[in-house]
Amino acid sequence: MPAPPRPFQTIAIIGNTRDLRVAETLQVLAAHLHSRGRRVLIDAATSIDYRDVAVERMPEADLCPTADLLVAVGGDGSMLHAARLAAPCAIPVLGINRGRLGFLADIGPAELGPCVDEILAGRYVSDQRAMLQATLISPGAPDRQCSGLNDVVLQKWQTGRILDFETYIDGRYVNTHGGDGLVIATATGSTAYALSCGGPILYPGLDAVVLAPICPHTLSDRPIVVRRTSVIEVRLLDRPDSNGQVTCDGVSLGALSQGDRLIVQPAAANVTLLHPADHDYYRTLRSKLRWGRGDRTAPYQTSD
Amino acid sequence: MPAPPRPFQTIAIIGNTRDLRVAETLQVLAAHLHSRGRRVLIDAATSIDYRDVAVERMPEADLCPTADLLVAVGGDGSMLHAARLAAPCAIPVLGINRGRLGFLADIGPAELGPCVDEILAGRYVSDQRAMLQATLISPGAPDRQCSGLNDVVLQKWQTGRILDFETYIDGRYVNTHGGDGLVIATATGSTAYALSCGGPILYPGLDAVVLAPICPHTLSDRPIVVRRTSVIEVRLLDRPDSNGQVTCDGVSLGALSQGDRLIVQPAAANVTLLHPADHDYYRTLRSKLRWGRGDRTAPYQTSD
Amino acid sequence: MPAPPRPFQTIAIIGNTRDLRVAETLQVLAAHLHSRGRRVLIDAATSIDYRDVAVERMPEADLCPTADLLVAVGGDGSMLHAARLAAPCAIPVLGINRGRLGFLADIGPAELGPCVDEILAGRYVSDQRAMLQATLISPGAPDRQCSGLNDVVLQKWQTGRILDFETYIDGRYVNTHGGDGLVIATATGSTAYALSCGGPILYPGLDAVVLAPICPHTLSDRPIVVRRTSVIEVRLLDRPDSNGQVTCDGVSLGALSQGDRLIVQPAAANVTLLHPADHDYYRTLRSKLRWGRGDRTAPYQTSD
Amino acid sequence: MPAPPRPFQTIAIIGNTRDLRVAETLQVLAAHLHSRGRRVLIDAATSIDYRDVAVERMPEADLCPTADLLVAVGGDGSMLHAARLAAPCAIPVLGINRGRLGFLADIGPAELGPCVDEILAGRYVSDQRAMLQATLISPGAPDRQCSGLNDVVLQKWQTGRILDFETYIDGRYVNTHGGDGLVIATATGSTAYALSCGGPILYPGLDAVVLAPICPHTLSDRPIVVRRTSVIEVRLLDRPDSNGQVTCDGVSLGALSQGDRLIVQPAAANVTLLHPADHDYYRTLRSKLRWGRGDRTAPYQTSD
Repeated sequence: MPAPPRPFQTIAIIGNTRDLRVAETLQVLAAHLHSRGRRVLIDAATSIDYRDVAVERMPEADLCPTADLLVAVGGDGSMLHAARLAAPCAIPVLGINRGRLGFLADIGPAELGPCVDEILAGRYVSDQRAMLQATLISPGAPDRQCSGLNDVVLQKWQTGRILDFETYIDGRYVNTHGGDGLVIATATGSTAYALSCGGPILYPGLDAVVLAPICPHTLSDRPIVVRRTSVIEVRLLDRPDSNGQVTCDGVSLGALSQGDRLIVQPAAANVTLLHPADHDYYRTLRSKLRWGRGDRTAPYQTSD
Repeated sequence: MPAPPRPFQTIAIIGNTRDLRVAETLQVLAAHLHSRGRRVLIDAATSIDYRDVAVERMPEADLCPTADLLVAVGGDGSMLHAARLAAPCAIPVLGINRGRLGFLADIGPAELGPCVDEILAGRYVSDQRAMLQATLISPGAPDRQCSGLNDVVLQKWQTGRILDFETYIDGRYVNTHGGDGLVIATATGSTAYALSCGGPILYPGLDAVVLAPICPHTLSDRPIVVRRTSVIEVRLLDRPDSNGQVTCDGVSLGALSQGDRLIVQPAAANVTLLHPADHDYYRTLRSKLRWGRGDRTAPYQTSD
Repeated sequence: MPAPPRPFQTIAIIGNTRDLRVAETLQVLAAHLHSRGRRVLIDAATSIDYRDVAVERMPEADLCPTADLLVAVGGDGSMLHAARLAAPCAIPVLGINRGRLGFLADIGPAELGPCVDEILAGRYVSDQRAMLQATLISPGAPDRQCSGLNDVVLQKWQTGRILDFETYIDGRYVNTHGGDGLVIATATGSTAYALSCGGPILYPGLDAVVLAPICPHTLSDRPIVVRRTSVIEVRLLDRPDSNGQVTCDGVSLGALSQGDRLIVQPAAANVTLLHPADHDYYRTLRSKLRWGRGDRTAPYQTSD
Repeated sequence: MPAPPRPFQTIAIIGNTRDLRVAETLQVLAAHLHSRGRRVLIDAATSIDYRDVAVERMPEADLCPTADLLVAVGGDGSMLHAARLAAPCAIPVLGINRGRLGFLADIGPAELGPCVDEILAGRYVSDQRAMLQATLISPGAPDRQCSGLNDVVLQKWQTGRILDFETYIDGRYVNTHGGDGLVIATATGSTAYALSCGGPILYPGLDAVVLAPICPHTLSDRPIVVRRTSVIEVRLLDRPDSNGQVTCDGVSLGALSQGDRLIVQPAAANVTLLHPADHDYYRTLRSKLRWGRGDRTAPYQTSD
């Protein structure tokens, strides 16, 4: 479903410049965009030498309000960061990986030029991804908030002691859990940490979130998939020495203490990812999970 | 969300009458409905003595076209059968269990009278459940079809040899699988066989189906949740001595042979379940999976 | 296999006295042992009032060198602590639970008197349990050691970042893992944290340990069971912001940093648990995991 | 641990000759062994043209009593068949795969010549593998027996209905199971079907068997690892329309009906596998499960 052409005249580019492969790709990318007559914005805090390529430096926080496209170079972690920057500004994100296909960064550095040209020409797949917002409500303290494209995670912190906590969905009590915590993941995040916790893969277009308990004490405490618009609440129960922390896409939001409430609900803004026109989610899945024809992990043959 | 009152003047009642508890409950139920002035229809093939209760006997196939409510007595299996009878006639189904709470049959025999009276008075929760339709397409043979409220299952049959098969979703190739088969389950069926195969729990209101591989050869071959409206296709690959069978809610549809195609898509008609007004899905889940406060399977304490 | 009678003249009793049920049971136990002419030793640091029962107070570290039996009151966590005290002194441990059956503490408070009398009379099952020793070797620092009856755990600590680490068994490279850590559990510990991580149940008499990865990144990174006498080595790989901690039975040993080595091997001393003569491991398993006849979690019926 | 040199003067070679790669490798192997002065025995029922290579044809059943080494060409299934032939005759088995590494057949066709020469010269690793014996005891019928190197499996057969069955270990009741069946696997078989059923990997030298339930109804019904010398008994419970079948290494032994008993215990004879001198079990594991450095299935990055 090719989207209608858009100009993308002002393009912000970001990446973890301590990674030399990323820095090199950023240089190539800046030069390429410049050669195509685009205005290129970079984070003033980074120190790459763009040589004769005219780039504009500004604080990271000013990039997205100024640009009409954000290109992230790196792994899926860089894409998660880019999504948090771009979502409130409603500009799309394009991901260029460092040589290994990501779930989100699906353009390889080798094909950067032709792929970027296609996208500048308006030939791409536009892929809207839902994000989650977490709110940590502590009595007598201001609410803390963060948003995530992958997941909101409650996890034990700096202790071997398990957490005891209760979950509520849309105001109804669901379960009392004991274990290492809980992953609340979007469809996008279902192939990240939630998958390691035994969660299912959610097709990106599915309007759902998954609650996957982390190493649950009770063996019947299984992942549950609910509507994306559900309001999920988590409350910690009293247990000596237990210590829970909430993170959004791996970034720490703060401690969940007894008496606090963690509320997870749809974020106000979603993010739009751009993909090459021949994008196929299932192909990415096959590549990342080593699925598919002739590429199977084959532990056994009962007979041949 | 109480539904508007409906008369339910003509009520069909079914159950496996070889089970004495079921037969006894059917007698009580017939008498109760009769005392409330309802017309009671029963399957002519059953041989319960309803004594002085006036019941009308007719072929099972005529029950639903005639009635405006179908009451099933028994376990969830009886409810699955009832759903297949009721869905095409668009009449709702009420389930009375035999003493042990089911996911679908959630009125106990002890509370039959008051619960049924509440429902006859129009005080109930109306719960629409999606069903799946399976079509088995074999070259040179007529298509075979069945529908299911829980699941469509492809499984190895009368052989220890694994099945090799490919899956396609909405026309796109997804994966090549080796293993004992595949469960394609509705939200309703997600707590049935699919759960034993490592699938997640899907909230009943979620518009989704889950594809859960059965004992997959490849350890990364994990359950995937897709939109309920997706068209799923399964094709068997050639493998000596392998033998696949397709079932809908446990009822055999036929063999899937090499060259055949199994298509699974939304059924033309869904089924409406009636529940008591205080129905709570999560409470049923807690009861069936032994979740909740103070009722946890607690295999360990790292310290106390 | 009843063991030959032993005197058990001097008996140390321990428990978490902040738990009132434990404190009360300790009082009853002390009085009972005193009435049977036994010398009763208690930890001087606890403050229970034993009233007219003559108990001897001494530092916890002196209890086991003095006693010929250690009785622990509490949950399995108290038993783990007791095992670490008793193993070096080669005295057996008896466990009295607080009202809920434990895997290790299998005498209920209600049956305390008759059960203890049976054991004092030499009618019991003697159950030797292997323990593990963990050694943390950091260049330029003294080695740190701990032992555990349940498990040695490497886990991420105070970070959402996964750990990357390598495992070696008996000097041979096994695998490179990414995830939340690794549980190395004895047969005893196989029903504790390792079970929550997807590990198998090991029969207590089996001479084996299980390595169960915690939420592994790679879906084929499955638990592996090796000989109990194997020497297991774990080395952390370099990864920014990752932070690993080693615990033995939930007690922290210290951080595993890049360049450090964690060695896990059989402990020098094992521990002997005493059970009532009718002890049956499988019965405990059925009780803790809700197995067995008529007590099954029954999520589905495909038909009835 | 190189074994002492043995002559291996008379060598039987087998393989599924319908597979052209296998047939070709058998020809190369026969010629190579002949050139080394060995007597080569083949199954008279196969129809490969060995041209000018002098081979002796005899019934398959006569091969092992005559030979002092059995070489199997093919996949792990051919090795399982070879093990059943060789074990009663106490001759070792060498496996040559068809181009893809097996767990058991670990010599590639490309390295056939040098590898075989090494083994003829007595430079190899000798690897004794335990086998299981299954006995099906039906009242009023002769006992049926089979043995397996991988596993004995009870599985539902030609029905979608689950099996209800009880397990006993060394005469003690363990659990009542509902589900698709049970895999009882050796350490060798732990990486075969049992792994797909959620079982752990057992190190081949571990003296243990694993009981892995197949798609169990009860979520806490987890794999259990017991001593290899344990006697395991399985009894089917009455359930309408259920139908259980017992297989050994995928070969059908017969139906398990209500009133029957399935006994699984150590086989009278084990089998000895020969490996190249540099054999490393963990390397095979890494290759088959795609473990190891830089070869990880990496579904996520929480940040980079």
